[in-house]
Amino acid sequence: MAVQSVESSTTSSTSGAFGPAVALSCRECGERFELGPIFACEACFGPLEVAYELPAGDPEGLRRQIEAGPNSIWRYAPLLPVPADVAELPSLNPGFTQLVKADNLARELGVTGELHIKDDSGNPTHSFKDRVVAIAVQAARTFGFTTLSCSSTGNLAGAVGAAAARAGFRSCVFIPHDLEAGKVVMAAVYGGELVGIEGTYDDVNRFCSELIGDPAGEGWGFVNVNLRPYYGEGSKTLAYEICEQLGWRLPDQIVVPIASGSQLTKIDKGLKELIAIGLVEDRPYKIFGAQAEGCSPVSAAFKAGHDVVRPQKPRTIAKSLAIGNPADGPYVLDIARRTGGAVEDVNDEQIVDAIKLLARTEGIFAETAGGVTVGVTKKLIEDGLLDPSLTTVVLNTGDGLKTLDAVAPTTGPSAIIRPTLDSFREAGLA
Amino acid sequence: MAVQSVESSTTSSTSGAFGPAVALSCRECGERFELGPIFACEACFGPLEVAYELPAGDPEGLRRQIEAGPNSIWRYAPLLPVPADVAELPSLNPGFTQLVKADNLARELGVTGELHIKDDSGNPTHSFKDRVVAIAVQAARTFGFTTLSCSSTGNLAGAVGAAAARAGFRSCVFIPHDLEAGKVVMAAVYGGELVGIEGTYDDVNRFCSELIGDPAGEGWGFVNVNLRPYYGEGSKTLAYEICEQLGWRLPDQIVVPIASGSQLTKIDKGLKELIAIGLVEDRPYKIFGAQAEGCSPVSAAFKAGHDVVRPQKPRTIAKSLAIGNPADGPYVLDIARRTGGAVEDVNDEQIVDAIKLLARTEGIFAETAGGVTVGVTKKLIEDGLLDPSLTTVVLNTGDGLKTLDAVAPTTGPSAIIRPTLDSFREAGLA
Repeated sequence: MAVQSVESSTTSSTSGAFGPAVALSCRECGERFELGPIFACEACFGPLEVAYELPAGDPEGLRRQIEAGPNSIWRYAPLLPVPADVAELPSLNPGFTQLVKADNLARELGVTGELHIKDDSGNPTHSFKDRVVAIAVQAARTFGFTTLSCSSTGNLAGAVGAAAARAGFRSCVFIPHDLEAGKVVMAAVYGGELVGIEGTYDDVNRFCSELIGDPAGEGWGFVNVNLRPYYGEGSKTLAYEICEQLGWRLPDQIVVPIASGSQLTKIDKGLKELIAIGLVEDRPYKIFGAQAEGCSPVSAAFKAGHDVVRPQKPRTIAKSLAIGNPADGPYVLDIARRTGGAVEDVNDEQIVDAIKLLARTEGIFAETAGGVTVGVTKKLIEDGLLDPSLTTVVLNTGDGLKTLDAVAPTTGPSAIIRPTLDSFREAGLA
Repeated sequence: MAVQSVESSTTSSTSGAFGPAVALSCRECGERFELGPIFACEACFGPLEVAYELPAGDPEGLRRQIEAGPNSIWRYAPLLPVPADVAELPSLNPGFTQLVKADNLARELGVTGELHIKDDSGNPTHSFKDRVVAIAVQAARTFGFTTLSCSSTGNLAGAVGAAAARAGFRSCVFIPHDLEAGKVVMAAVYGGELVGIEGTYDDVNRFCSELIGDPAGEGWGFVNVNLRPYYGEGSKTLAYEICEQLGWRLPDQIVVPIASGSQLTKIDKGLKELIAIGLVEDRPYKIFGAQAEGCSPVSAAFKAGHDVVRPQKPRTIAKSLAIGNPADGPYVLDIARRTGGAVEDVNDEQIVDAIKLLARTEGIFAETAGGVTVGVTKKLIEDGLLDPSLTTVVLNTGDGLKTLDAVAPTTGPSAIIRPTLDSFREAGLA
């Protein structure tokens, strides 16, 4: 299945369906393959990623084209593995979420440069997962899959269910059977099949891999398995949007949460692409990774100076980041070290404090993953690892409404009073 | 305090702070007042609303100006009671939410024309309340208020808390003491004062009116009381966005939920303004109101042919619409009758069915108010009151994550299986 040159893949039957993408390329050995529903290198079992022939030579024209595009990730269609007319196809149209200039938070953290929150809770199902799923859906359409699937601990299940409903796919998603009731409702309400698996998330994952190899899984696109190379590209749009919203300028520092590590690697890929095309000036940037102490395999490896990541058994309130054996961990270590960044972690109490800090200063109610990035930013500044005089962007990848339990025990009314002015005055609130 | 002419108010100390707004005008008797933190006519106690001198003579130029503006309600600053530089001031920057072409839902409902969902769950705190609060915050800034307040059953409390945090106001909001725990967390997390009142929502409201007249309430802006004329104008932006997103075209039919009725009247006001300025062609449109059967005072009055609205005691799962004595009810009746629309209601079971229908067809998880509008749309088509061959826009004003309880009892996994292919096949899902 390996191809000798870029040309052979662009003349395939799916020509145009993947826009500027020309092949899948092994991240480990560089072997190239035709664009297809595959995710591991036949030669070395390394992960595959999308390779492009990106538009070059007219950055000004491209910039104008992007700025005139839709208010969604599809404005970046010329840089994604999607057809040029992708915005006309049914999709949740995620992305182009707010980049919030966080002056109040900056003051509290002693940041004298610009501090921004990239707030991805504004996506259709209120997490960054809508970005990655949107690209996977488009690939599923091209490959002729009729069922969309995934293994999930909740957020991804909802994103897949919603995207499938809009785009006209059947969906069948798999979750551990003992998820919180709220997450089950969110995953089931879109009307697809939702299957609870008696086992852990790892059991769910293993089962999905089995299903892909079985006739029962024929015609199924698993967004985070056999469509993973396309899915992952959705995270590049975070990098594109941040730079465009900064006025086509690289941030000096970015703080990114780490679950599998994929998002961080794709943000780096996106920034490098913008530099290569000439859409932003080529100058250094630092990427910082953020983990929860209760699931900090990458942070531990970074601090120990290791190149390999030793798996951990997760135990943290930041459940959307609770991947104990992150597939892209080693790549994250590379990027943090190459760019001069770092990987840090915060404990559950610091996560809750950071959620409240962000809410109190900027009116943004983040899910626990946002508490992790804001908490880590605070810690990095205190430790002198993040320069408070530069331009920094911190990611919030999800919505506090999905992780209410994290703050509920310590968040309530200031007072309960009778409906009288006397009672109000007694409470000392006037 | 009444003013004789428009000129005297524009020369006040707040000149420019209210943009094209020139006075407050009594909806009942037409008496005009200076722009200030007042909400009832001194002459007849009628409600006050903002009067404008809107930009005229160059609709093309205005259209270009709007299209080049920010992706928020501030693109319509030339039509709102805000200064021209409002987008530079700290705000949650709500609005410009997606208008979703709902082809799948259209098929299910037998709509042969265009059907669109205006999905306001995409706002920063995931309800349309962010629009109205943003305008009230700007007025509070101009009037020199330092504390933002409101009476709320939950959603508004969160919107005010978040907006106050971003804009640098103290906030103190009042809620009935026995609200659901989730709503309390959402209202409290932004760090302002949250006060539970031992009593009903009516008791909370009465208490707020008392507090406005007391020295303890000095310097306080109650967004839905003494800032209500400004607050209400935020809903006009729904009309502006719908028309712009349709390509500067009026929809033929709009279905709007009714709580106090304010939103529906302001959407009508917004459409009339666009016609007057020449931004859209002047042709007929119909506005339909949607209520829950368990709180349907306006629907009941419409069907009985009455001009007055007889209060009801609310008993419905659509709590954000549960206002038994809607202040703008008579105006809603006028508008529905004048435009050739109607007011209809659906019961709790139909609301839940409609939430699921919208989720299943379009991947939009609406709160109960969205179930009301979609359910009413279905009923209006079945009854021949809404023409399925025309262009129809249905509002979803909030997010399903806030009313999970409505669908939870009937929404769950299709199957629970062991992590084996045999178990999967037995479940009949292949």
